[in-house]
Amino acid sequence: MKALQFTNGQVNIAEVPVPSRDDEALVRVLLSGICNTDLEIAKGYAGFEGTLGHEFVGVVEKAPARSGLEGKRVVGEINAGCGKCPLCRAKDPRHCLARSVLGIHGRDGAHAEFLSLPTENLVPVPDTVSDERAVFIEPLAAAYGIYEQVPLALHTRVAIIGDGKLGLLTALSYGATSSSCLLVGKHKEKLAIAEAAGVATCLLTELDTTAHRTFDVVVEASGSESGFATALDLVRPRGKIVLKSTFSGEPKWAASRVVVDEITIVGSRCGRFEPALKLLERGKLDLSPMISDEFRLADGVAAMRRAAEPGVLKVFLRP
Amino acid sequence: MKALQFTNGQVNIAEVPVPSRDDEALVRVLLSGICNTDLEIAKGYAGFEGTLGHEFVGVVEKAPARSGLEGKRVVGEINAGCGKCPLCRAKDPRHCLARSVLGIHGRDGAHAEFLSLPTENLVPVPDTVSDERAVFIEPLAAAYGIYEQVPLALHTRVAIIGDGKLGLLTALSYGATSSSCLLVGKHKEKLAIAEAAGVATCLLTELDTTAHRTFDVVVEASGSESGFATALDLVRPRGKIVLKSTFSGEPKWAASRVVVDEITIVGSRCGRFEPALKLLERGKLDLSPMISDEFRLADGVAAMRRAAEPGVLKVFLRP
Repeated sequence: MKALQFTNGQVNIAEVPVPSRDDEALVRVLLSGICNTDLEIAKGYAGFEGTLGHEFVGVVEKAPARSGLEGKRVVGEINAGCGKCPLCRAKDPRHCLARSVLGIHGRDGAHAEFLSLPTENLVPVPDTVSDERAVFIEPLAAAYGIYEQVPLALHTRVAIIGDGKLGLLTALSYGATSSSCLLVGKHKEKLAIAEAAGVATCLLTELDTTAHRTFDVVVEASGSESGFATALDLVRPRGKIVLKSTFSGEPKWAASRVVVDEITIVGSRCGRFEPALKLLERGKLDLSPMISDEFRLADGVAAMRRAAEPGVLKVFLRP
Repeated sequence: MKALQFTNGQVNIAEVPVPSRDDEALVRVLLSGICNTDLEIAKGYAGFEGTLGHEFVGVVEKAPARSGLEGKRVVGEINAGCGKCPLCRAKDPRHCLARSVLGIHGRDGAHAEFLSLPTENLVPVPDTVSDERAVFIEPLAAAYGIYEQVPLALHTRVAIIGDGKLGLLTALSYGATSSSCLLVGKHKEKLAIAEAAGVATCLLTELDTTAHRTFDVVVEASGSESGFATALDLVRPRGKIVLKSTFSGEPKWAASRVVVDEITIVGSRCGRFEPALKLLERGKLDLSPMISDEFRLADGVAAMRRAAEPGVLKVFLRP
């Protein structure tokens, strides 16, 4: 089968065997989405080699019979645990030390004709949610992961830094329930997507010092050193900064600001699929402005280049 | 009166007027302690100019009559708020945006013959607590401040990085109640002080990778960039790092480690005096090994130099 791989420092389309693990489900990929993490991996982040991709929707071709999943259209949680450690037994393999992660760590990913995942990772998708929406469940769940770690009430004053894919999804999901949410970005046309969904937005250049130290929670979703500096400017004393973006490199930071203002910084990675799926089922969230382009899987190398262009949001791959 | 000041980039002994604020208490200083923050200020941290010092014990010479404090021996909380904002009205001026801080920000400090503080900042010291112990209440309270922000149970696995004054005080206070606390440092003779109090210790060079990602909470009290890196090595996924040290400079950090392992970083500054005072009243904590030297206030410049020498712990100034 075809797979978009990162090997020997190069992104390439390879012919590889169809996965065959009797203990897991075989999923035929219908559509996959390129995430910034894929682009970071192609720059060397996480030291991964193999098939890229972790956002997908597909159909279960083969699965252990007791799972009842064969023929079902599914999305999949990306962390596959050892199944034995206390975390896995509590059904949360996201921090299992022996985990593999789809297309990121120790496990071939979703930019391929087929992928393999444990049956417990798969979540059936209702007919009312199209492929083009279902493929957003993983990044939406990541945006929702914030709720698991930081209490956000209706009136919690939240700023989101970054108008890329993750920042926009965070704004669309949280902005839908918050009375006080501001998306800060550098691109008018991207901010307009959040505005259309009813989220207040602001260009970074329009932020003045009156906004400093006023936000209860600031979500850093730009993945840039300057984004973190902006988050430190905006958060109130004893407020919280949520770090959502994985990025390579080691930013500097004003550690004494964190101590003096007793700021809490919370790293946040993967979220649960259920709340994201429910949000999509409600049908109110328009994700179509988030889709920039679609490529055939065979043109995956060009798709990765396209996804890295400035101003481009989600790029899909169709096997 | 004499005061140890930092002005025009220089530490010096100056003759200055005795403070005279009718709305505050005038305290005759009996003993003050030099903190690393004093040394950092003398390097330019916090942009402060004026009388240094924020750790003291003294006698109230004069105070508004209704306070009933005249003649009492006291220690003092160092943050003086505006008295009007919601934080101040809730009796926690530590984050009042208009606050002054004794010897650190907008208010002359304790390395002087007299100091001035609002009466509500002053806490009477029981006769059973000597001057030499009472002067440790402020830094002990800072160590205890961790409890306000991070739940620490008996079996919480805690590592403390740094065997300087703050690290040792944190180890002595927390180690007294924990069943699983490890102090990590670079100096055998300093670690011995914690060992003598029953706290497990470890030289940084003895730490191997088996300790990595195993601690629930890591307290960074070394104030160094490498200390933070060690904290990141030791903390478990979804664990917490408490930043206790204020330091100038902007360390680099492996932000993606924080995101992938969903680590929480908690800045922590000043704590409440009551728990620290109670610990000292119990009388079990031997602080005498923490005292390296004592100088006359008039020799304050030499005392600051002494406090900055490697291996030196608390240095006292006596007016």
